[in-house]
Amino acid sequence: MPKRVGRYTLELLNRPCILTSATAVGKKEAEGPRGLLFDKVFEDSRCAKDAWEEAEAELQRAALSKALEKAGLEPADLDMLFAGDLLNQCLVSAVHASNLLLPYIGLYGACSTMAESLAMAACFVEGGLAGRCAALTSSHFCASERQFRFPLEYGSQRPASAQWTATASGAAIVGRGEGPRVTAVTFGRIVDFGVKDANNMGGAMAPAAADTLSTFFQDTGSRPADYDLILTGDLGAVGSRLLQTLMEEKGYPLGELHDDCGLRLYDRAAQGVEAGGSGCGCSAAIVCGEILPMLREKKLRRVLFAATGALMSLTSAQQRLSIPGIAHAVLLESE
Amino acid sequence: MPKRVGRYTLELLNRPCILTSATAVGKKEAEGPRGLLFDKVFEDSRCAKDAWEEAEAELQRAALSKALEKAGLEPADLDMLFAGDLLNQCLVSAVHASNLLLPYIGLYGACSTMAESLAMAACFVEGGLAGRCAALTSSHFCASERQFRFPLEYGSQRPASAQWTATASGAAIVGRGEGPRVTAVTFGRIVDFGVKDANNMGGAMAPAAADTLSTFFQDTGSRPADYDLILTGDLGAVGSRLLQTLMEEKGYPLGELHDDCGLRLYDRAAQGVEAGGSGCGCSAAIVCGEILPMLREKKLRRVLFAATGALMSLTSAQQRLSIPGIAHAVLLESE
Repeated sequence: MPKRVGRYTLELLNRPCILTSATAVGKKEAEGPRGLLFDKVFEDSRCAKDAWEEAEAELQRAALSKALEKAGLEPADLDMLFAGDLLNQCLVSAVHASNLLLPYIGLYGACSTMAESLAMAACFVEGGLAGRCAALTSSHFCASERQFRFPLEYGSQRPASAQWTATASGAAIVGRGEGPRVTAVTFGRIVDFGVKDANNMGGAMAPAAADTLSTFFQDTGSRPADYDLILTGDLGAVGSRLLQTLMEEKGYPLGELHDDCGLRLYDRAAQGVEAGGSGCGCSAAIVCGEILPMLREKKLRRVLFAATGALMSLTSAQQRLSIPGIAHAVLLESE
Repeated sequence: MPKRVGRYTLELLNRPCILTSATAVGKKEAEGPRGLLFDKVFEDSRCAKDAWEEAEAELQRAALSKALEKAGLEPADLDMLFAGDLLNQCLVSAVHASNLLLPYIGLYGACSTMAESLAMAACFVEGGLAGRCAALTSSHFCASERQFRFPLEYGSQRPASAQWTATASGAAIVGRGEGPRVTAVTFGRIVDFGVKDANNMGGAMAPAAADTLSTFFQDTGSRPADYDLILTGDLGAVGSRLLQTLMEEKGYPLGELHDDCGLRLYDRAAQGVEAGGSGCGCSAAIVCGEILPMLREKKLRRVLFAATGALMSLTSAQQRLSIPGIAHAVLLESE
């Protein structure tokens, strides 16, 4: 049974296990500093499909297949799939899942989806609602730019605060067995600080990350120093700096313990990604490709992972609405 | 603890309770045959806001506030909000929830969201993951037509298979206490029968409804006659006819036991809604406004509610992709 601690944090006393994880990425991600950690690389950003949406579905297919293969499982061995993506109406996840014949829950949490889906999968296993389930998400640079900002053909300039949506997918299989554990989750609240700039996602999401992280510390009575790493999803350089300031104000300075998947995925100096990586696939690739394996090998012991999402759409940008942010936190332990 | 029966159905042995439910609707819905059942009517389809998206957020606000008020609760008394809508990137739910300061899970299941959110809320209560939570969804005719088909200003003609997206919202508070029970859920699988016509949602969704309903009957070893009512979300006239045929083929003829929220919400002959109502708000209004109160008053005892969703987007329609369908089933009992 889960145990509610504080107001909004759940301790998962059965300690659901992440049996396996896997990743599929594009060429640019494979050329980054973590390139060798990913399971499958698509050199062609269309993945031999006609449209980017279908290409992104191929990324999901590759990541989930590989995660299942590592666990020696078939799709039919899963009780449930929690999945989501950035494209309007979670199109990619629906297209991919329509071939799986698995109970499907479509999630929308923008770039927070890796933590959201992992937390949901862990909660379902913890609560006896599923024996084994998958958490899956993805993003694709070309499809996202067209949908949220400008078609690539326009060749529009990108400001320094812009982030590069990762072409990547990550999958994790959650159940009972051997592997890293999900020992606590804090589902986040929506925080809207009034940021309206679709090229400053980090700024829009940092207040939500600060809210969820400080809620987690308060609920659990712990401090940043109790963890090996406090990893946000895709705040990038601008959002990460803002998070540091906000957490100092809240009395939980993060200092060197903080890192961000958006800063780990690319070499900012060499790869021209402005403020860093973003997209559901960004934290999915880093967590499923780097962090979970390090926990499995006990190179890390306790990682607090908080993926952040900017809950905007093209409509809201055109209507000049501010961008609501959200962050979900998942505590990952090596055993 | 929940008990898995068959392959994909969960019996919720703690019998989570629907403490209260409430609805907010537009003028046309209030003029329909169930008009007097709804809690709040907005005569102005803009709800005194500048944009339809913000108007729809007002519908959600009214429905959730009323449901909380009936239960004598404040938002802070909830542990979690499960919400979703039809607009790109679940914009309405995010805009509404950004004022609530509640842990928020954004769901995307298209018009299946009332069943999806109710099932998730019930599962969280059943599994000890939440003490009390809310399930919430909405849709708005004007915003949906513009996004999925044509702006209203075009005055485009609607074929006979088209359905009318309800301007409506429904909210249910799930916890422990007195009221109708959620005693079983079957999360649906995505089924794609190749329908590509965005004006034939019923046809696209009926195969998914047939898959989920027959899975439920098979898993539980029950028959349609074991229920007072088998209620689909928004198949309308075309989809309902197709469902009858498919269920006969599967050996579970529904006959007179079947009804559809899309057929209950409007007077098709008098209100010009072609094949019936649709949208997340359609089944939300009927279930929260009519069915749950009838269960509460024991005028109905056992209702199998399966809301259906067409997982399309404007992008997928423009790319001529087929429309994946999904249906989630929730067994509602009077006590």
